[in-house]
Amino acid sequence: MEYKRVGVLGGGQLGRMLAQSASLLTIPISILDVGHSPAKHVVHPSTSAHIDGRFSDPEKILELARQVDVLTVEIEHVDVAALERAQKETGVSVHPAPSTIRTIQDKFLQKQHLISHGIPVAESVAVDSNEEALRAQCTRFGLPLMLKSRTLAYDGRGNFVLRSAEQASEALQALKDRPLYAERWAPFTKEIAVMVVRSRSGQVLSYPAVETVHKENVCHLVFAPLRSADPAIAERARKVAEDAVRTFEGAGVFGVEMFLMPDGSILVNEIAPRPHNSGHYTIESCHTSQYTNHLLAILGLPLGSPALKVPSAAMLNILGVSASFTPIAELVNVALTVQGATVHLYGKAESRKGRKMGHITIVGSSDAEVRSRLRPLLAALPPDPQNSTYVPPEQTPGFSSPHPLVGIIMGSDSDLPTMLPAARVLDQFGVPYELTIVSAHRTTERMTLYAKGAASRGLRAVIAGAGGAAHLPGMVAAMTPLPVIGVPVRGSALDGVDSMWSIVQMPRGVPVATVAINNSTNAALLAIRIIGAGMPSLLQKMEKYMQDMEAEVMGKAAKLEEVGWEKYEVKKH
Amino acid sequence: MEYKRVGVLGGGQLGRMLAQSASLLTIPISILDVGHSPAKHVVHPSTSAHIDGRFSDPEKILELARQVDVLTVEIEHVDVAALERAQKETGVSVHPAPSTIRTIQDKFLQKQHLISHGIPVAESVAVDSNEEALRAQCTRFGLPLMLKSRTLAYDGRGNFVLRSAEQASEALQALKDRPLYAERWAPFTKEIAVMVVRSRSGQVLSYPAVETVHKENVCHLVFAPLRSADPAIAERARKVAEDAVRTFEGAGVFGVEMFLMPDGSILVNEIAPRPHNSGHYTIESCHTSQYTNHLLAILGLPLGSPALKVPSAAMLNILGVSASFTPIAELVNVALTVQGATVHLYGKAESRKGRKMGHITIVGSSDAEVRSRLRPLLAALPPDPQNSTYVPPEQTPGFSSPHPLVGIIMGSDSDLPTMLPAARVLDQFGVPYELTIVSAHRTTERMTLYAKGAASRGLRAVIAGAGGAAHLPGMVAAMTPLPVIGVPVRGSALDGVDSMWSIVQMPRGVPVATVAINNSTNAALLAIRIIGAGMPSLLQKMEKYMQDMEAEVMGKAAKLEEVGWEKYEVKKH
Repeated sequence: MEYKRVGVLGGGQLGRMLAQSASLLTIPISILDVGHSPAKHVVHPSTSAHIDGRFSDPEKILELARQVDVLTVEIEHVDVAALERAQKETGVSVHPAPSTIRTIQDKFLQKQHLISHGIPVAESVAVDSNEEALRAQCTRFGLPLMLKSRTLAYDGRGNFVLRSAEQASEALQALKDRPLYAERWAPFTKEIAVMVVRSRSGQVLSYPAVETVHKENVCHLVFAPLRSADPAIAERARKVAEDAVRTFEGAGVFGVEMFLMPDGSILVNEIAPRPHNSGHYTIESCHTSQYTNHLLAILGLPLGSPALKVPSAAMLNILGVSASFTPIAELVNVALTVQGATVHLYGKAESRKGRKMGHITIVGSSDAEVRSRLRPLLAALPPDPQNSTYVPPEQTPGFSSPHPLVGIIMGSDSDLPTMLPAARVLDQFGVPYELTIVSAHRTTERMTLYAKGAASRGLRAVIAGAGGAAHLPGMVAAMTPLPVIGVPVRGSALDGVDSMWSIVQMPRGVPVATVAINNSTNAALLAIRIIGAGMPSLLQKMEKYMQDMEAEVMGKAAKLEEVGWEKYEVKKH
Repeated sequence: MEYKRVGVLGGGQLGRMLAQSASLLTIPISILDVGHSPAKHVVHPSTSAHIDGRFSDPEKILELARQVDVLTVEIEHVDVAALERAQKETGVSVHPAPSTIRTIQDKFLQKQHLISHGIPVAESVAVDSNEEALRAQCTRFGLPLMLKSRTLAYDGRGNFVLRSAEQASEALQALKDRPLYAERWAPFTKEIAVMVVRSRSGQVLSYPAVETVHKENVCHLVFAPLRSADPAIAERARKVAEDAVRTFEGAGVFGVEMFLMPDGSILVNEIAPRPHNSGHYTIESCHTSQYTNHLLAILGLPLGSPALKVPSAAMLNILGVSASFTPIAELVNVALTVQGATVHLYGKAESRKGRKMGHITIVGSSDAEVRSRLRPLLAALPPDPQNSTYVPPEQTPGFSSPHPLVGIIMGSDSDLPTMLPAARVLDQFGVPYELTIVSAHRTTERMTLYAKGAASRGLRAVIAGAGGAAHLPGMVAAMTPLPVIGVPVRGSALDGVDSMWSIVQMPRGVPVATVAINNSTNAALLAIRIIGAGMPSLLQKMEKYMQDMEAEVMGKAAKLEEVGWEKYEVKKH
């Protein structure tokens, strides 16, 4: 197997993970960076000669270009003219295109480029680096005002939030003499991201939309896939990201960071022309990682599938706390005890506060499981009240789980006593659920929103109880692709037979899984069997439950033999 | 982060994959092997000094021992005395224990050791290396007789199957002058394997049981997890493997190869004291790969979870066809187009017929999906009629899939017309299924076996149709943890109401998901929703189906408006 040789400008963690992926296919790779940088650790120099030097040094770039077939970058802050010269003098392919890197590395040029291609972004305008211009801009865009350095900005360095026009001088000092631009404040509800891969022939594939959580402007957590009550948002985010990447030249992976706005619209925040922190999770969670796909793309090989192969994943950055490695070691030691956690350390020689030293990917069979696995990791970090927003405590008895797999709904609060046994069974099995009132006839809009958003919020089954002309289960089933379990609730007349026929006799096309009248216990057991069909550990719990039932009846039979039927007392449930 | 340094005897593919895993945690690793072997490619020598030499050379072993904290092996054919000397002279930890390697590297000693610890193995006896002794043994054990070299045997080298006593001289020539032993022939139905990891403190965890397929004595395919109509077999295999590994000293991963016998019993065939070909699939398919767990075990760190994180996986070895790399490149080029496939190439400098050059892991959301992804890969190999046994063609209309997710059963062939629409819907959605007759009242034993084996065979839902005193759905539900969907079939009297109540009014503890009378269409749609709850691509298909239904009705409404209701013709289904 002889693949073309890849040269990478930059030998940090992104270069390292590229090199690790390259080793799977024996793609030869050469790293340009100063000294024995992390990416060089995982490649024997006899396989690929590395170059010792700054990735911004035109001579070193030329030297690298001469020994490889394809040049790529792990950072966009490179000398584009040097790349172009190397391309011209050596004939090396450069991916993504130098023109793309030039546009992207100047954030204001990037914004203008996106605007000119109809990609939604926050309104932006270049501003002069003086107090008067800044104050005037505060008046035009209102407060707070996002002020950004056009160049050499990453991980929030180069951003300044003006909360009053008085901060103009402070802002200028913080951002030094760099060229600036101002952005109209985007009061987003969530930060989201999509990794997009573009082949040399222009094919564009996107990874699932994810939620990103930043802390002091640095990526802290990533959750995949994005959950949302509006089922259209995840696809809309992918479309915006794909459209944005289509406007650039050259192959490779692009990280598209976006804002989700309160009205459900999406704004592109910024784009990275390379693998990205928000895509680390893909190594353990997707069919093809962002790193492998970047290599496949720039080498002109077929792109791999970006689909998730696990139901849920999260990524936690391991950031330096100080010069000491002890806090990192402590976090890693916890991670090694967490099922589904995979630790990546980057081999950096020194730790600094805020420096990216590694990351931990956590995968699981549900969002709730992933969060519960994340909890001990966050507990090992310095306390942060924000953490409980993203990883709330376990379900409290009597209150809905923030990451439910089952929704229990009922047409009326009078159905609650009938439906409570379902909640008890789910508690017993440790299956996260929510419980609420949704009436088909009295809250039709609520029912529609509930049904349409059930799958995209991460539910896997809905249990709906209703009595009389019981329409709730069938109407919900008509608006969700999820399995809906109907519990006919016995009313004051007809012994529940009315509810039964109303629920079970659904027309062809829309099924409701109907259980016995008033038997919400069986509804919950059915929901567990449904979820268990894709979760072997839950099926095992169901087998145990069935064995326990058998043992209970066997015990009663023994008791009956022992005391005789004249003395046997039948216990009521 | 400062981990202890690991030294590995042997720098082939197993050492390479150990080194790749070590790089995730920045565990320093040094490889002892001749020249620039595959494992050395992925480790920069400044991170870990490699040693150039034979892993059987006592002086080189000593040199390696002096520079590392823990010594391990990627092959059991090492000089145990040299390991013991290195342990004594340098104080290095050796895992697994040299005594373990000594016992295992002599296959007959290994067998005797297992027998003495009550582990089930094929009856074995040492035989002298002469024709007379062999012929006598043929008489004692019967034919065919498995003759094995006690030492230096792997990948079937060192095995000879005597089909007649006349082959004695041929066998002696083939096996040269090595010490031999004979095994009573084990007429197994399947070859299976379990990877077991043992910590330094003696904790033992096992990976899922897998099916292995050998071709000319070399591992060809691995399927995970093992499917079987007997739900006890997979757990039994893990228990036998764990028990076997508990009899050995020292930490690390052990590959336990076993025979599944026609009566469901299990015999240990042989044990490898190291990561094993049958565990390659764990890299992409399990929470913690066999390589990471081997490192964690020998370093005394907490073991990772061996659980599968995907529903189904397979592994295909890439074997050399000749000295040419072209056939390998052709296979890899196909693999790059297959969703869920991950290619591992080992970077071996030369190809030879039968040499392990790499492997491909395929993961998917079901066995059927994994097999369909495997099909183009096998088609890219030299033709082999055996392949269709393991990867049969897609489902033929009218016949059951070999890897069904849904079982459609009915109490009587007279129910077939009622149940056929379910089959049509599953066809339409591309969900693999089986269809057969199982009667609760006339074939109780068949029903019991069917229900008890449904989950372990890989089914995720059962659709059961029955009429009158309809017991089939409820009885099956009582014997499987899977969701069971009941279709009340209308009989000659009572309009199906009898069937309905018989199916839906199940007692607390055993739910049946009941659909409308005769509505097997909805039963299939419900099965798809159930499976789709853990398979997002299937939920998308269901959403599309629901949109199509809506469009169909909208079209009818438009037609009604267009032609008027006097002329509108209602089409029968």
